[in-house]
Amino acid sequence: MGVLDRNEFTVIAGPCAVESEEQIFQAAAAIAAQGVGILRGGCFKPRTSPYAFQGMGVVGLRLLREAAKAHGLRSITEVMDVETLDLIASQVDILQIGSRNMQNFSLLRAVGRTQKPVLLKRSFSATYRDLLDAAEYIVAGGNEQIILCERGIRTFEPFTRNTLDISAVPVLKELCRFPVIVDPSHASGLTRLVTPLTLAALAVGADGAMIEVHPCPEGALCDKEQALSFGQFGELMDSLRLMAPTVGRAMPLGSLLAR
Amino acid sequence: MGVLDRNEFTVIAGPCAVESEEQIFQAAAAIAAQGVGILRGGCFKPRTSPYAFQGMGVVGLRLLREAAKAHGLRSITEVMDVETLDLIASQVDILQIGSRNMQNFSLLRAVGRTQKPVLLKRSFSATYRDLLDAAEYIVAGGNEQIILCERGIRTFEPFTRNTLDISAVPVLKELCRFPVIVDPSHASGLTRLVTPLTLAALAVGADGAMIEVHPCPEGALCDKEQALSFGQFGELMDSLRLMAPTVGRAMPLGSLLAR
Amino acid sequence: MGVLDRNEFTVIAGPCAVESEEQIFQAAAAIAAQGVGILRGGCFKPRTSPYAFQGMGVVGLRLLREAAKAHGLRSITEVMDVETLDLIASQVDILQIGSRNMQNFSLLRAVGRTQKPVLLKRSFSATYRDLLDAAEYIVAGGNEQIILCERGIRTFEPFTRNTLDISAVPVLKELCRFPVIVDPSHASGLTRLVTPLTLAALAVGADGAMIEVHPCPEGALCDKEQALSFGQFGELMDSLRLMAPTVGRAMPLGSLLAR
Amino acid sequence: MGVLDRNEFTVIAGPCAVESEEQIFQAAAAIAAQGVGILRGGCFKPRTSPYAFQGMGVVGLRLLREAAKAHGLRSITEVMDVETLDLIASQVDILQIGSRNMQNFSLLRAVGRTQKPVLLKRSFSATYRDLLDAAEYIVAGGNEQIILCERGIRTFEPFTRNTLDISAVPVLKELCRFPVIVDPSHASGLTRLVTPLTLAALAVGADGAMIEVHPCPEGALCDKEQALSFGQFGELMDSLRLMAPTVGRAMPLGSLLAR
Repeated sequence: MGVLDRNEFTVIAGPCAVESEEQIFQAAAAIAAQGVGILRGGCFKPRTSPYAFQGMGVVGLRLLREAAKAHGLRSITEVMDVETLDLIASQVDILQIGSRNMQNFSLLRAVGRTQKPVLLKRSFSATYRDLLDAAEYIVAGGNEQIILCERGIRTFEPFTRNTLDISAVPVLKELCRFPVIVDPSHASGLTRLVTPLTLAALAVGADGAMIEVHPCPEGALCDKEQALSFGQFGELMDSLRLMAPTVGRAMPLGSLLAR
Repeated sequence: MGVLDRNEFTVIAGPCAVESEEQIFQAAAAIAAQGVGILRGGCFKPRTSPYAFQGMGVVGLRLLREAAKAHGLRSITEVMDVETLDLIASQVDILQIGSRNMQNFSLLRAVGRTQKPVLLKRSFSATYRDLLDAAEYIVAGGNEQIILCERGIRTFEPFTRNTLDISAVPVLKELCRFPVIVDPSHASGLTRLVTPLTLAALAVGADGAMIEVHPCPEGALCDKEQALSFGQFGELMDSLRLMAPTVGRAMPLGSLLAR
Repeated sequence: MGVLDRNEFTVIAGPCAVESEEQIFQAAAAIAAQGVGILRGGCFKPRTSPYAFQGMGVVGLRLLREAAKAHGLRSITEVMDVETLDLIASQVDILQIGSRNMQNFSLLRAVGRTQKPVLLKRSFSATYRDLLDAAEYIVAGGNEQIILCERGIRTFEPFTRNTLDISAVPVLKELCRFPVIVDPSHASGLTRLVTPLTLAALAVGADGAMIEVHPCPEGALCDKEQALSFGQFGELMDSLRLMAPTVGRAMPLGSLLAR
Repeated sequence: MGVLDRNEFTVIAGPCAVESEEQIFQAAAAIAAQGVGILRGGCFKPRTSPYAFQGMGVVGLRLLREAAKAHGLRSITEVMDVETLDLIASQVDILQIGSRNMQNFSLLRAVGRTQKPVLLKRSFSATYRDLLDAAEYIVAGGNEQIILCERGIRTFEPFTRNTLDISAVPVLKELCRFPVIVDPSHASGLTRLVTPLTLAALAVGADGAMIEVHPCPEGALCDKEQALSFGQFGELMDSLRLMAPTVGRAMPLGSLLAR
């Protein structure tokens, strides 16, 4: 097995940002109860404005690790620079490179020198070729444990935050050997679109999806318009379980706790 | 029931252009055998260059009608101007307004004065709001039998012909009462993407899809890179039949002829 | 001399729409006093919504002709369909095809059969190649008196109405023999950008510009955020007169009336 | 005087990359002879593919400094990461942040803590607001010596490398207090468009332009399709000198050497 089990539709879930011990432990419990194996949570947040909430930093990193460990989950968080890379790599299981850093070539080379799987998000203005070239920077460092993630591109349509380019999935899978997942939360920016878009990702052949889930979306410190509540997340998982066999994918069962 | 049965996932299929009696009758037979109820075929073709094949015109229109009738199908073809509208409306069951004419307001008003259902394709640069405003021109004429069709938007990505905006489906269904279908053939321009994108359309909640099917794709006079053969179309229909119940949709059964 | 004097920087000016006899005569007087030779004014307006002001129609057409004649100007207005083409062609000197009709091939063929110069505006999502192919539809009808007009393309930037693609000018002039002008009013949608963008058009090599001018911009029935007052228009003309000789272009002198 | 003399139209010129001692000294001599005061030259190159030429690194940095010093010029080069920032800041006069790093927030904070002027290039998918927010990251570090640079955005048009958004200049100057320059070389990717686009930049109100100039463009190791020869650069400077007074700008005189 590589970095992801290709027979499964792998769900990565959790809050946009780690906000408190209570929040991340609640999120970890809820997603573990759904059989999901990877917990996401931002600690160092790349915010468009320097005056927006920038994440809990090192403290958040510790909380993410502890919450994941308590529920037998793997953890993933975003790496924003080479300075904090070693620290982050020592604490989490998967490193995330965000859209804005997709062509931060120094950072790509640096994560290429680690032994950690890397989730590489497509920049919202990158062509497929640009994304694959960026992945080559990681490969050039010796690390081939790469997961590509389509998360919406910039277009003229203002209704959604970005425009999910669902065709990216089959094309990228044709052009490379890496698993390809989708982030419907950032792509749409709208909670009510997350479930239909995740089902579309499953149908089109994606290897998984990364979903924002929060114990209390309306109180989230960032991206609250796009997070699912635990109840909404459970319904999404049920829909995925129903559809997955029709495209030849396995899905984890949820436990009684998730009901 | 309105213009489409909303419990079904309605497939509209046929060649890009009517090319000969043999071609359109073969196509009609093949799609009828799959249980599909609507035959498409261009007669007056809007080609980017005036020197490209422009369609069979009036003769094509008659062949389309006869092929549809012979197999108990409804027919649809594109209307390009007010001059030919009455003629076309007398021969086919559904009128199609193409992307390039989505804001041809004179034509929209004219089809609004007919009693025929209108399939309105989104321009490749129209926002959702623009598309809904265009539909209002038809409604203003007294015709509310409208089907909206997402067929890809223009972005910076050169790999696909256009970029299918799958989010258009749930958003348009939220904003209006018209059925919404998807055209994966024009959106991608690539045969091998048609099946995954049609499944994504079903998964995301579309009411149907319009698919280019040709007896011999490699010999098609237009858009041959995006047409399905009868065999590929049969496999697509099988995949749709498998997935449809998981999203609460019915699909027509195929007959023994389609095997 | 062809359709435009290529040694000059040709300014076409006037209101977005003909609104009243007083308005269009005032506008004609003001632009004539600046030495401008072509009066624009919409009579049949292509509005995104069917419930917006649609123009004065036939009455507007007569007023436009009379106002132009009274001041020795040529006139231009938009043609929206084949039905009204003969009427319009009998009343104005130059026919305009708007962005939304750039690929209305039936209309292109029809104006190609007239003897009138045609101003063809680039669709906001057309490539240079698409625009040149559209011009070929007019040429195919026998009419080579074509003026191309860049008027902004659709991008992700929301600040301006569209994004003026200034590079279109030198590229189109390289690829074809038609004069190329710019419409900074529609491109930007903002009065205060019209002067700098028109100067940029002159500097980049455009053969002219089409400018919205209104006796009372704040009271205009359409596009009031982008119209110049007579005073602002005079200042623009003065700036053009100052710069034109440095790029080898002539500009008409204004009369005492314009001061 | 701030980071740039706002009465002048400031030209920054030089090769895409420092390639050899001979090349950068020749370039420095040629641009100094034109009265240009700032020499550009990439040393650490952000290339889309890891297998493309990556620059001469530390050696290139020394050559750039020596060539600039020999001709009384200021120097500018791109900073790609925090690791090499101190080294680069000790060798050059102005730091450049490239498009791909416009939202590399760690790097923005780091250059904000230096005392060097920073040229911040707009990402090819950044809105004006995104660019201004990125500048705030530098300001937040205490450094307000910022120059903004428009260098083309990504659109659907394939003819040019990017689409120069000339409207960015007047809008950014309205929204902030920083000087705004244009990079026509990267925007168009085509040598023959550099002169018209630079004149458009001057006309629209830009405070300067950054131009790729190479002793032998056809032999350049990167971006050879967009570099000017010394002769072409001299003609551009002459055109700028002719136009500049008409928009109230000064331009440096060239010396006899440049003839």
